[in-house]
Amino acid sequence: MELVTLSDVQAAARNIDGVAVRTPLLAAPWAGASRGPQGEAARAGLGVELWLKPESLQPVGAFKLRGAYHTVALIPADVRANGVVAHSSGNHAQALAFTARAFGIPCVIVMPDVSSPVKIAATRALGAEVELVPPPERLNRCAEIAAERGMTVVPPFDHHDVIAGQGTVGLEIVADLPDVACVLVPVGGGGLASGVAVAVKALRPEAVVIGIEPELAGDAAESMAAGELRKWPVELTYRTIADGLRTALSERTFAHLRKYVDAVLTVTEAEIEGAMRELAVRGRLVVEPSGAVSVAGYLRHRAALPAGRTVAVLSGGNVGAEALVRVLS
Amino acid sequence: MELVTLSDVQAAARNIDGVAVRTPLLAAPWAGASRGPQGEAARAGLGVELWLKPESLQPVGAFKLRGAYHTVALIPADVRANGVVAHSSGNHAQALAFTARAFGIPCVIVMPDVSSPVKIAATRALGAEVELVPPPERLNRCAEIAAERGMTVVPPFDHHDVIAGQGTVGLEIVADLPDVACVLVPVGGGGLASGVAVAVKALRPEAVVIGIEPELAGDAAESMAAGELRKWPVELTYRTIADGLRTALSERTFAHLRKYVDAVLTVTEAEIEGAMRELAVRGRLVVEPSGAVSVAGYLRHRAALPAGRTVAVLSGGNVGAEALVRVLS
Repeated sequence: MELVTLSDVQAAARNIDGVAVRTPLLAAPWAGASRGPQGEAARAGLGVELWLKPESLQPVGAFKLRGAYHTVALIPADVRANGVVAHSSGNHAQALAFTARAFGIPCVIVMPDVSSPVKIAATRALGAEVELVPPPERLNRCAEIAAERGMTVVPPFDHHDVIAGQGTVGLEIVADLPDVACVLVPVGGGGLASGVAVAVKALRPEAVVIGIEPELAGDAAESMAAGELRKWPVELTYRTIADGLRTALSERTFAHLRKYVDAVLTVTEAEIEGAMRELAVRGRLVVEPSGAVSVAGYLRHRAALPAGRTVAVLSGGNVGAEALVRVLS
Repeated sequence: MELVTLSDVQAAARNIDGVAVRTPLLAAPWAGASRGPQGEAARAGLGVELWLKPESLQPVGAFKLRGAYHTVALIPADVRANGVVAHSSGNHAQALAFTARAFGIPCVIVMPDVSSPVKIAATRALGAEVELVPPPERLNRCAEIAAERGMTVVPPFDHHDVIAGQGTVGLEIVADLPDVACVLVPVGGGGLASGVAVAVKALRPEAVVIGIEPELAGDAAESMAAGELRKWPVELTYRTIADGLRTALSERTFAHLRKYVDAVLTVTEAEIEGAMRELAVRGRLVVEPSGAVSVAGYLRHRAALPAGRTVAVLSGGNVGAEALVRVLS
């Protein structure tokens, strides 16, 4: 299998320029002072070890826009005009709908008929057609629509161009913090972790890239330890509140993780909620459970991380008021 | 009185580079579609009219870092070495403490003895000495300390250099959104509004700059209408939850507002809390009441604003978990 390269990611950066927000790195001194070298940080009075990459501030509230937009941009114009289709009940749905509207092309999102009305409405509000089907029929229905209408399927993570697009997060991290020692990135299907690791390792090989996932959906950590792809049944992965990280890796993302990611570590549900609370009150950021696992991982595993500056990628911020109130109360 | 100029603000931008975060402009499509020209927005599928400038993401959680840092940077090095002093119980205290630590100089913050333990602790955590005095003695004690220790007083808003520093927010807005039609900015003491208006009007004279304040602390709106500075007693202004906006204008900031700000409009307490809720759930940003008045102003006064792209400055994000829970529940 051909893995994503740095030049693929650089091409993606050119495509998404002006569409995705160039999110800043934000210092998080509240997470503890630096154990590493001071340099410029000392001048700024910081001594900060943890920096946040708030992808929660993208339009549609998640990094997914990067991969979706880049992938659609690479479809030949005559084919692209027929539109795009995906099955998703999460952030990928809104990212693809947003992208299709930007290109002025049709978009169908196939969602499980058990999806929340809020997510259905949000996707429709972005101009996509939403088709509700029983969960086991999602893949088939998606393929059917693609065949019937000549639409291109844009998968949420198991796709070369999608991974390249997500990798732009890694490019920006190294550009903004050239001496970064460690990058923590949430792992669900593995698209974000794959892309970020490709970019970071190419530009700064000495940096460590670590995936973080919930213990309750710890399939990636198990796969890395076993040296082979292990998939957990949904009955297990659906126990975590981190709804964006319940997905298993694909062969493609596992291949990237094995080559470019140093380790995958896990966090508990209580640690995820604690990180969400700290991010809201001290970081002034609303982050969804899947996005907060990276900070939870920092707070839990800090002693085992390399000394120096660490970046935690906050992958998304789509969380309801009720869930926010619960973690803040 | 000599007013702040564009070149003062440009000098401030050079001083704060690498210290203050270059906050991005974030689209807020949830606040309503555009009535103005589409252009690039149409390409990006947005049609967005409201854009947010999240100064809540600065270190210390507020724009105050810009003015404090620039002002301290301009103090001659031999004088600066003696340290800085201010009286403040709010965001200016933490901004000055952060700045002093960055320069490696002493810092004393005089606070009312009724200040919350959280704010006192936060200021001490940044390395400042905190001196608690009865509220009426704050100014005198601050002057005494300055005289005794050779420290320079850095006022929260009534100072040429502080206003110039806050103006860098305006520079960045016009740089990122050259066709901006309207800028909404919170008004308390008026330092932020003064600086932003100077920069925006110099670079884009056709843009409208509007100050927003709580009805319950509507002294700036009254002053603008009367054409003379009107100060409200603290018994009145302390009714608003927007604790950063209870201060009266100074002669200096009023002079800037009269020359460069087109109008000052007011919002209710319920509108402020509604804006905080929308910003958290749909904007994924934790914003304090004083910072949310600009969005509250947009939502209330939208029909009266010029067509085209509007920027709301979110001045700060320092709000406790309890207050957040209240507006989200």
